[in-house]
Amino acid sequence: MFNFQIIKKSKKSLARIGKIKTPHGEIITPAFLPVATLGVIKGGLTFNEFLSTGVQAQITNSFHFLDLDYIDVIFKAGGLHKFFNFSKPIFTDSGGFQIFSLGRGNEFGLGKIASIFPEEQKKKSKNQLKSLQKRNNLIKKISEEGVWFLSPRNGRLIDLTPEKAFDVQNKLGADFIYVLDVCGTPLDDYFLTQKELEISHQWFNRFIAQYKKIKNIENKQQIFGIIQGGLFDDLRLKSAEFVNNLDVFGIAIGGALGKNKKDMFKILKVINKKIDFNRPHHLLGIGSLSDLENLIKQGIDLFDCVLPTRMARHGMALIKRGFIDIVRKKYQKKFEPIDKDCDCFTCKNYNLAQIYFLFKAKELLAGHLLTIHNLYFFEKVLQNIRNKILSNKI
Amino acid sequence: MFNFQIIKKSKKSLARIGKIKTPHGEIITPAFLPVATLGVIKGGLTFNEFLSTGVQAQITNSFHFLDLDYIDVIFKAGGLHKFFNFSKPIFTDSGGFQIFSLGRGNEFGLGKIASIFPEEQKKKSKNQLKSLQKRNNLIKKISEEGVWFLSPRNGRLIDLTPEKAFDVQNKLGADFIYVLDVCGTPLDDYFLTQKELEISHQWFNRFIAQYKKIKNIENKQQIFGIIQGGLFDDLRLKSAEFVNNLDVFGIAIGGALGKNKKDMFKILKVINKKIDFNRPHHLLGIGSLSDLENLIKQGIDLFDCVLPTRMARHGMALIKRGFIDIVRKKYQKKFEPIDKDCDCFTCKNYNLAQIYFLFKAKELLAGHLLTIHNLYFFEKVLQNIRNKILSNKI
Repeated sequence: MFNFQIIKKSKKSLARIGKIKTPHGEIITPAFLPVATLGVIKGGLTFNEFLSTGVQAQITNSFHFLDLDYIDVIFKAGGLHKFFNFSKPIFTDSGGFQIFSLGRGNEFGLGKIASIFPEEQKKKSKNQLKSLQKRNNLIKKISEEGVWFLSPRNGRLIDLTPEKAFDVQNKLGADFIYVLDVCGTPLDDYFLTQKELEISHQWFNRFIAQYKKIKNIENKQQIFGIIQGGLFDDLRLKSAEFVNNLDVFGIAIGGALGKNKKDMFKILKVINKKIDFNRPHHLLGIGSLSDLENLIKQGIDLFDCVLPTRMARHGMALIKRGFIDIVRKKYQKKFEPIDKDCDCFTCKNYNLAQIYFLFKAKELLAGHLLTIHNLYFFEKVLQNIRNKILSNKI
Repeated sequence: MFNFQIIKKSKKSLARIGKIKTPHGEIITPAFLPVATLGVIKGGLTFNEFLSTGVQAQITNSFHFLDLDYIDVIFKAGGLHKFFNFSKPIFTDSGGFQIFSLGRGNEFGLGKIASIFPEEQKKKSKNQLKSLQKRNNLIKKISEEGVWFLSPRNGRLIDLTPEKAFDVQNKLGADFIYVLDVCGTPLDDYFLTQKELEISHQWFNRFIAQYKKIKNIENKQQIFGIIQGGLFDDLRLKSAEFVNNLDVFGIAIGGALGKNKKDMFKILKVINKKIDFNRPHHLLGIGSLSDLENLIKQGIDLFDCVLPTRMARHGMALIKRGFIDIVRKKYQKKFEPIDKDCDCFTCKNYNLAQIYFLFKAKELLAGHLLTIHNLYFFEKVLQNIRNKILSNKI
């Protein structure tokens, strides 16, 4: 049922074209996984509008279904594919990143690449810090056993162990599920990161042991392991080696990726020394258009990122040289599409002046139309990169 | 270009099937005009999703384009049809109702049918009253000349005269435009209503005089006159007679319609004594499903109402016996469509459990899907009524 086949390898870099076979069809890599946080893409798209963007697969956050106490409802409905009318492959993350964003990530207002260090943190207003610390308090305990946190929605205590993270994702029924990890921040020192890594590696083994208990599951679901290790080369190397030896379908790269993009590429180079290239590589949570080609040259096959859809809802439309902010007066009377060469539904039917107005008028259609465009545009950029690989230009 | 033809008359009532010809196609009456306040239906529907509901025409509020200083942009874009990708007939109201809702309507929190009288008003909280009175202050002056008000959006002073109301609607380019009226409240006494009516009638003449100055406009735009007169039979009669004698395409019934639905039907019966039945009759702002058939029996051909779309955004789905509130726990695991017999996109592709979840998850898709259903459902109810008239059942 599942299979990853490399169709074409670049001679100039680690870039390659691959084909992932799943029970819900194929994914040609390098591929983008739009983030359907709660099962659907934000912006009010129906499943057929979503499909019209050329999307090959989606990634959904299992954490929120756990938080909403919705695992059994989705299971009863026949899984995520049925419940959200999505016929293509679905990936679900384990909740590790949400532990990070509920916890220290929020405390310091950090992303996966962050240049904010404690001294800069002091500049933040007291109120902001208070609110962040309040959210941090939602994590009650992280131990070798698992994690206990208060629901950000209603305050009830929820536990998440590797066994439960597997069970939840198994019931949701995604094609690809992710091991539970402790996701550090760029502030974590060596000893904390080392401890987090030890726990993560134990959790991976427990997650996989749980998976192996279920008969024929390999025809329904496959696992991605996650390399952690923060900003420390020897820990990244250790984790890469450990994950590379796991019996998993794919390899994901998670956790803090440094202070800037240079650090991120350095980390990838370290990891690449230890992992094999017969499996798909997923760089978790990263997907800015300008980095795609360079990341693909480092052997990355899968991207997921909220940027294209979040930008859309805030009036930012992707274009060849980056993006434009559509809610600027200069677009008020521009009766031309966002991109004349774009074949998306939005560019074929609506112009800048219309979308500008819809944003000003606060009509939901505005974000809806830009979401369609941004997803379509992102897919096209990836398609162009794939074509470049095929024609030996990368 | 324009023409209203009666295809079938009921023998049992004033109901009839009609056909309105316009430069943007035909409308079979009785028909519903969904309210596209700012040019598009709220709920994030694209033009083709909107068309999929079977909609025959839409009504849009010219007031908001004036408020947004957008008349010239829409004109430059080629009018509302082009700007909003709507190929079917468009109606625009004049702003009269917004004068009402900015003014006394808001002061007393009243709709067109209202049972709230001053003594009940006292029960309202002080804050609510203050906020209403603040909005009331937006109307600076209503005189025979016109109305001056402060923009509810940015506070600038805007004037609206019959001449300007025509000019605005002419530039917006709807198929059907409405005279500017003074829209009273159910609280207005006889003398106030009489004064309002006098001003309205003068404004109608001035509006029509402006219209007649433009060559060949009759092939592009036609006018609806508006009967006012509040709750007073002799004033309604007077207005009906006056409007009936105007050189207009259609007759609308506006203003306060009483304390309850009984009053509304009484007013219609009074009006019907004085108006001819060779023109389409539009009951402004009224369109609750349960009243449709009885109103049609009183000769009403056109309805507009925000209810189906507003209800949709608040989780209320129209069904045969009224509506259901989808955000009730009992729908959480109902894996069946809102209405098994409904052929709308939503009922064909989504079930109650899914829409319940989408509302709980605050995904815009929820209101989007219900808007499609409610509009489609409303159209079907009207279609059934038309069939009943055709088969002599009404």
